[in-house]
Amino acid sequence: MNEQVSESLFDRAIDGMRNAWRDIAVTARLTTPSVRPDLPRTDEALVKQRIAACLDGPGGEVSARARAAELGRLYLGLSAIGRGRFLHLLARDFGVDRKALDRRFEEERQAADDPMQAEDIEEKLREALITPRTRLLSQFSSLPEGFKFLVDMRSELLDRIPGDPTLTGLERDLRRLLTWWFDVGFMTLSRITWDSPASLLEKLVAYEAVHEIRSWTDLKNRLAADRRCYAFIHPRMPSEPLIFIQVALVNGLAGNVNQLLDETAPEGDPTKADTAIFYSITNTQDGLRGISLGNFLIKRVVDHLSHDLPNLRTFSTLSPIPGFRKWLDQRLTEGEPKLLSGPEHEKLRGLVPKKGAKGALKEILDRPDWPADEKAVSALEKPLSRLCARYLLNEKRNGRPLDPVARFHLSNGARVERINWLADISANGLRKSAGMMVNYLYRLRDIEENHEAFAGEGRIIASATVRSLARG
Amino acid sequence: MNEQVSESLFDRAIDGMRNAWRDIAVTARLTTPSVRPDLPRTDEALVKQRIAACLDGPGGEVSARARAAELGRLYLGLSAIGRGRFLHLLARDFGVDRKALDRRFEEERQAADDPMQAEDIEEKLREALITPRTRLLSQFSSLPEGFKFLVDMRSELLDRIPGDPTLTGLERDLRRLLTWWFDVGFMTLSRITWDSPASLLEKLVAYEAVHEIRSWTDLKNRLAADRRCYAFIHPRMPSEPLIFIQVALVNGLAGNVNQLLDETAPEGDPTKADTAIFYSITNTQDGLRGISLGNFLIKRVVDHLSHDLPNLRTFSTLSPIPGFRKWLDQRLTEGEPKLLSGPEHEKLRGLVPKKGAKGALKEILDRPDWPADEKAVSALEKPLSRLCARYLLNEKRNGRPLDPVARFHLSNGARVERINWLADISANGLRKSAGMMVNYLYRLRDIEENHEAFAGEGRIIASATVRSLARG
Amino acid sequence: MNEQVSESLFDRAIDGMRNAWRDIAVTARLTTPSVRPDLPRTDEALVKQRIAACLDGPGGEVSARARAAELGRLYLGLSAIGRGRFLHLLARDFGVDRKALDRRFEEERQAADDPMQAEDIEEKLREALITPRTRLLSQFSSLPEGFKFLVDMRSELLDRIPGDPTLTGLERDLRRLLTWWFDVGFMTLSRITWDSPASLLEKLVAYEAVHEIRSWTDLKNRLAADRRCYAFIHPRMPSEPLIFIQVALVNGLAGNVNQLLDETAPEGDPTKADTAIFYSITNTQDGLRGISLGNFLIKRVVDHLSHDLPNLRTFSTLSPIPGFRKWLDQRLTEGEPKLLSGPEHEKLRGLVPKKGAKGALKEILDRPDWPADEKAVSALEKPLSRLCARYLLNEKRNGRPLDPVARFHLSNGARVERINWLADISANGLRKSAGMMVNYLYRLRDIEENHEAFAGEGRIIASATVRSLARG
Amino acid sequence: MNEQVSESLFDRAIDGMRNAWRDIAVTARLTTPSVRPDLPRTDEALVKQRIAACLDGPGGEVSARARAAELGRLYLGLSAIGRGRFLHLLARDFGVDRKALDRRFEEERQAADDPMQAEDIEEKLREALITPRTRLLSQFSSLPEGFKFLVDMRSELLDRIPGDPTLTGLERDLRRLLTWWFDVGFMTLSRITWDSPASLLEKLVAYEAVHEIRSWTDLKNRLAADRRCYAFIHPRMPSEPLIFIQVALVNGLAGNVNQLLDETAPEGDPTKADTAIFYSITNTQDGLRGISLGNFLIKRVVDHLSHDLPNLRTFSTLSPIPGFRKWLDQRLTEGEPKLLSGPEHEKLRGLVPKKGAKGALKEILDRPDWPADEKAVSALEKPLSRLCARYLLNEKRNGRPLDPVARFHLSNGARVERINWLADISANGLRKSAGMMVNYLYRLRDIEENHEAFAGEGRIIASATVRSLARG
Repeated sequence: MNEQVSESLFDRAIDGMRNAWRDIAVTARLTTPSVRPDLPRTDEALVKQRIAACLDGPGGEVSARARAAELGRLYLGLSAIGRGRFLHLLARDFGVDRKALDRRFEEERQAADDPMQAEDIEEKLREALITPRTRLLSQFSSLPEGFKFLVDMRSELLDRIPGDPTLTGLERDLRRLLTWWFDVGFMTLSRITWDSPASLLEKLVAYEAVHEIRSWTDLKNRLAADRRCYAFIHPRMPSEPLIFIQVALVNGLAGNVNQLLDETAPEGDPTKADTAIFYSITNTQDGLRGISLGNFLIKRVVDHLSHDLPNLRTFSTLSPIPGFRKWLDQRLTEGEPKLLSGPEHEKLRGLVPKKGAKGALKEILDRPDWPADEKAVSALEKPLSRLCARYLLNEKRNGRPLDPVARFHLSNGARVERINWLADISANGLRKSAGMMVNYLYRLRDIEENHEAFAGEGRIIASATVRSLARG
Repeated sequence: MNEQVSESLFDRAIDGMRNAWRDIAVTARLTTPSVRPDLPRTDEALVKQRIAACLDGPGGEVSARARAAELGRLYLGLSAIGRGRFLHLLARDFGVDRKALDRRFEEERQAADDPMQAEDIEEKLREALITPRTRLLSQFSSLPEGFKFLVDMRSELLDRIPGDPTLTGLERDLRRLLTWWFDVGFMTLSRITWDSPASLLEKLVAYEAVHEIRSWTDLKNRLAADRRCYAFIHPRMPSEPLIFIQVALVNGLAGNVNQLLDETAPEGDPTKADTAIFYSITNTQDGLRGISLGNFLIKRVVDHLSHDLPNLRTFSTLSPIPGFRKWLDQRLTEGEPKLLSGPEHEKLRGLVPKKGAKGALKEILDRPDWPADEKAVSALEKPLSRLCARYLLNEKRNGRPLDPVARFHLSNGARVERINWLADISANGLRKSAGMMVNYLYRLRDIEENHEAFAGEGRIIASATVRSLARG
Repeated sequence: MNEQVSESLFDRAIDGMRNAWRDIAVTARLTTPSVRPDLPRTDEALVKQRIAACLDGPGGEVSARARAAELGRLYLGLSAIGRGRFLHLLARDFGVDRKALDRRFEEERQAADDPMQAEDIEEKLREALITPRTRLLSQFSSLPEGFKFLVDMRSELLDRIPGDPTLTGLERDLRRLLTWWFDVGFMTLSRITWDSPASLLEKLVAYEAVHEIRSWTDLKNRLAADRRCYAFIHPRMPSEPLIFIQVALVNGLAGNVNQLLDETAPEGDPTKADTAIFYSITNTQDGLRGISLGNFLIKRVVDHLSHDLPNLRTFSTLSPIPGFRKWLDQRLTEGEPKLLSGPEHEKLRGLVPKKGAKGALKEILDRPDWPADEKAVSALEKPLSRLCARYLLNEKRNGRPLDPVARFHLSNGARVERINWLADISANGLRKSAGMMVNYLYRLRDIEENHEAFAGEGRIIASATVRSLARG
Repeated sequence: MNEQVSESLFDRAIDGMRNAWRDIAVTARLTTPSVRPDLPRTDEALVKQRIAACLDGPGGEVSARARAAELGRLYLGLSAIGRGRFLHLLARDFGVDRKALDRRFEEERQAADDPMQAEDIEEKLREALITPRTRLLSQFSSLPEGFKFLVDMRSELLDRIPGDPTLTGLERDLRRLLTWWFDVGFMTLSRITWDSPASLLEKLVAYEAVHEIRSWTDLKNRLAADRRCYAFIHPRMPSEPLIFIQVALVNGLAGNVNQLLDETAPEGDPTKADTAIFYSITNTQDGLRGISLGNFLIKRVVDHLSHDLPNLRTFSTLSPIPGFRKWLDQRLTEGEPKLLSGPEHEKLRGLVPKKGAKGALKEILDRPDWPADEKAVSALEKPLSRLCARYLLNEKRNGRPLDPVARFHLSNGARVERINWLADISANGLRKSAGMMVNYLYRLRDIEENHEAFAGEGRIIASATVRSLARG
């Protein structure tokens, strides 16, 4: 080996060891301070001292991190009131040193045009802009569950900010940290199966928000051979799926989520499926809000599925229409006749014993069990499907679709493929979408063009069937 | 579930999916641009365009990262000249936007004293200080070996900077990124054994700098039951130990590294050892220079060993004395009699056939095989040990020990415990330390006091034996 | 390398390859025969042919195993009737070749006294005694789930034999095979936790027989920090725990299984527990009946716990008393006064509105909710505890305790330590043991002596408290 | 749960626990007996007692196995002489109980023709034929490295038997045990790569017999991307590959093993390779001699490769011709002119300074460095290739090819595809095959037909080139 190199490696080795032994001695003497859960003013002073010791105390980084770990444990022991005080302390007393920052500005003003010098000043500015609290927060990473600790702290901050905007700066500092540490480069794509640890699976049950998981057998069914569930896992939060997506492998477009989740349905053969239905995607960590992972997850899942199951030809969603009923109810205040044909109107009125104030259509829709009434179903199907197609294709605000989910998928280049009658008859599905769902179809070769048409002219692409339905 | 929450989760789900499908379509059409290895000026323009497309191109983050991945592959295909040009491009054209920064300064000057507003402006300043090239570099994390890619790029920059300081700003950007991504919170402490993958073990062989690993049997011996080897592993560079430390578990202070590494020596019983000798620590990644890991590694290893082998009572190093021969040679130019007693002088002269210009002591020390000459060994032991003790205890510059390793350990609170004669008779050991090594002993209960004495009064703590040797 | 050795290794290599290539060609042409599920006589002939082909067909072992795999798949497709016919075919037509065996007998008769020759003949006899069906069964090991296949087949045989003893010989052949293949040397001791795969945990739920697992939260509670669950896992049935044991780590003898299984109880600290309560052990595979694993499991668990948790001082069971109520009911037919004191009798009668035919004690015990009636509980505790002590200590048949669980533990050297009132008030617990349970205590230093006293003189060892209770 | 079942499970649970506690007490008191390494007669008696205690001692199976473990450790501490005595003890005193066996014969003679009764007697016979030593050997499976222990013991027996046939019976008992326990159903097919544990890879280096592995870089080269190495791993000997096979993935038939093993050759792309060359297969455990695994390994590897790399079209060997030089030397004693044409003879004589007794051809072949002599190479190529083709195609004994490797592959249905000149110029390759190697080609669609032709008429199938060479 070249001796030069060897020397430099040696120096680095020494650099690496600097203060290590002293740190060991210092940390051996640490004790957790004892504070009251509500952190009254007198204890606050003690905590402030502790924080300062993490930032500028004796010993090196190892000691500082050991002290930070103690502080982390202290925080976990606080009550809601105490945590609030702790966070305010950080927000108020550990922000940017304004005087130091002003000195940097002064330098900057006097700097010549030499780009090298400019870069030096920029660097000093950057350092002056790193808040002491950011340095403290970063030390928490060494806690046994340090990353989860920080994610949860941000979640707590986000909850408090609407009523307490002075925490905003602290929250931004934390967000910046988490943005680096939860970069998609750290994520592992994991397929979740019935062979996954129960401790991981119970997280799915707890977090699933789109279509609630009712039991372990429901969960097992969602992990069967003709289903796929993928998650992003972070190396330092291995038992927490940060985001997960649920896919059904079927033949033809699936149009009914209740059937999709039916535990008694026979299991399909995934190698023969031609369609992947994305029916649920869930972010689990409120503290990672705004750190985008979903798009990367979908990309990796589509790649993985295409490679693993070459038979798949169609990628589609099965989506709710969350704004339909709300829109419909408003229109109905203008009177039914505008929305229904004469015969439709007659048929509906025949189902309502005595004429109420709100009109026959609304009266029926407000019955929680109307899907069980064959006559009602038969009378509603045609008009409601037509109205739904109109809602999706024609109703806009500022030139964009009224429905938030439609807005999202259409701007992505999908098209409205099919409206599904009695597709989600859960209480929530009836209340919001009158039980209907819609498939947004993603055809790789059309996505760009659809997107341009939508972004440029506001044109909504839909299948011929849906278009004719909206016209009908 | 509370509906409010559910809605917000749903919004986040949509947020997560934004642009995912369009990204998929965009990335499907990507092709690697073809540039010449030396990146002549015409190709440089193409590359600049590509970089810009990563930063502000159509589609969302997924597309941007896919383009960055292409760019990364392109970089790997360049020659040394081409890479230099690529790096300069980044350094020159993708730094801070000075005009935008100046606008922020203007705002700051006009800002009132409201701390909330101040924080807003600080945040904008921070953003204005993020260089476009930093955003590009961060996108490389998604490359299959993205983290290693960035570490190697920084290593390349550090090599170029001495001759080309204009790369400094770029290097700082990269260092900032790596400081976050190689935070100790990401590290896994791994014990490396003979059951570890060969692909990992060959890295030890390649990187070990302090005492070269000569063969696989040498390596196997260093991983035997009475040895320990620990490394820090990063989750995205699993086959690269970032830093590793080698420990021998022995009884009593080990004073001879050649015996320690002797493959034919019988294996000791680690559960009966009372002493852990840290005899080598190696940083493997030049691109992580200045990002401290060694102190954390030592702390974790001491913790782990103390817990695993409660019999261990003593923690010590077995260290080289790299400045001894250099110092001695300078002193010898002043004449031997000043350093040796009369009888010592006589004895040495009897070993040298005819009187040379450089004096008997130096003449013998310059013979590469003097340790094999019993008479020389006997004549040298006493005076050299004494001189070495003096060198370590008395020779200072600016009030601190002349020897760099001594400086390091003494400032950490260790004490000079024992000087070991014929302790490292490798060519390197003879040339630098006249074959001697020294144990620096770390006694937890004395570390603080030793450190204070050294830091405050410059007092060097040593065992009675070494002190009496220095006086002798 | 020594050339001789090399040659011999070469020969073995060739030996290993013999017929491999031809087998590959043969197996490529295999097709599954199509038979009807009930295996009518005509199909039976086809199957018989197939079996013969596995035993003596063209090609080597690889082809034979491939054919056996086809046969295995065929078997799995049969109805219950078809399987019965398949098994009879094996039992009837693929047993020992009597003529060949008789020839061996003849040889044996004529053999001289030369021990070498005797051993040759013995070996030939052994071979003649290997039934062709054994060779077939052994080939099933190569099926993807081959070992489970054989275990399940034996389970099926054991179910059929009571009504069909002609299957006994086949069952014995299979048992012999499984005895070798499920030798304890193959078992891995696994600790089962909430991090184990859900697919493994659902097996616990399905198999637990002693105290039913009611839900996943019940299961999670049984795997909490102050519980242990261990299983033996076979390398070729990795998702099937063959036998598992549940242990509670507590302070002092636990006397109530309902408390032990209470999901709302606070979690104890296992490192501070002094007592391990073995409260359930379950064999999961009916097809491994008679192949002893439980004793080895207990031994390994005690070893593991003693090492892992050095605070543990006491190892005890918490056991049901399955024969108590049955015995009591018989005694009660003789009239209550013989069993109860006057005041006890009076007190009980006061609780029963009108005198029934079966007596007050029985009448109360037959009420499913008597434990909720404070007066009944108070009136029953003393007499029932005394009667239970007598039952355990005095009631014998052929000089051995009447109760099967008592018989088992006492013969192992345990002693009757404590009778626990209201210890298992599940429906099953009330019906069999009047809600009582007993601790059998294992003290290592007394086990041998207790065993001798019990085995030699039939003496039952019990604590002073239980002895005085029985006398009272 | 059905109560019947529950009861029976309960009984089995008790069955499983039988004697467990007593065993624990017994094993706690075990101590290793101290015997002298050579096992003199007095110590032999002690050992005999110990063996008897394993077979019929107090306590249950757990105690017996614990005692067997002690005995195993004792055996490992013996000298070669001591082990011999130990094995003889087993062979002589722990065989079949002849009297018990004779009683069974008597029963058998008197048995009626009832098949059920016949099966009972057969079972009793089988049991009488299980030697006590077999029961002891089977208990060794619980030793920490128990399976390896038994494999090594059989290896030792096989070494001793040629000089000591009285050990044959013992060896047969052990073989029977190992045949069950190393059934192919237990094997895991493992791909071995450079990421495998060093402790496993060093076994490859130690065992490889066909083409010696010279160094770790040689090994790394054999595990490169265009190579495959597969092994069978037994679950209880996880760090010992029982048998491994080395495959090169190339384009076209590889004809030179030195090139194949050349570390400096560029790495090929396996996904583009059309040919798999099996160039080495090695059994590692002498103690598993006769237990066939190689054929199963090849079958699984061909399956795996075909699936993993669909581009592969050709499966062939690159094989030595171990009998060629021996045959040639014998023919040369009859004089060169019979084998060479006039011009060939002349050319060779020109290369030999003075005419020696053994003829020019033999003289040149005996020079160890003739492949470096261009003239010699040119003069030898044509005649030696022709003679080799004749040797392979025409030379037979009892109607079968003289060459053992040819005999093996041709009988498997392969054909002689190509003779390769200067294909293995290692010392061994020159001495045995005059540096030539041969490809045996396996074409799935021809294997059967080739085999029939060879087995039936003794016809050897070869490519047109080789046939014309043999005629030439």
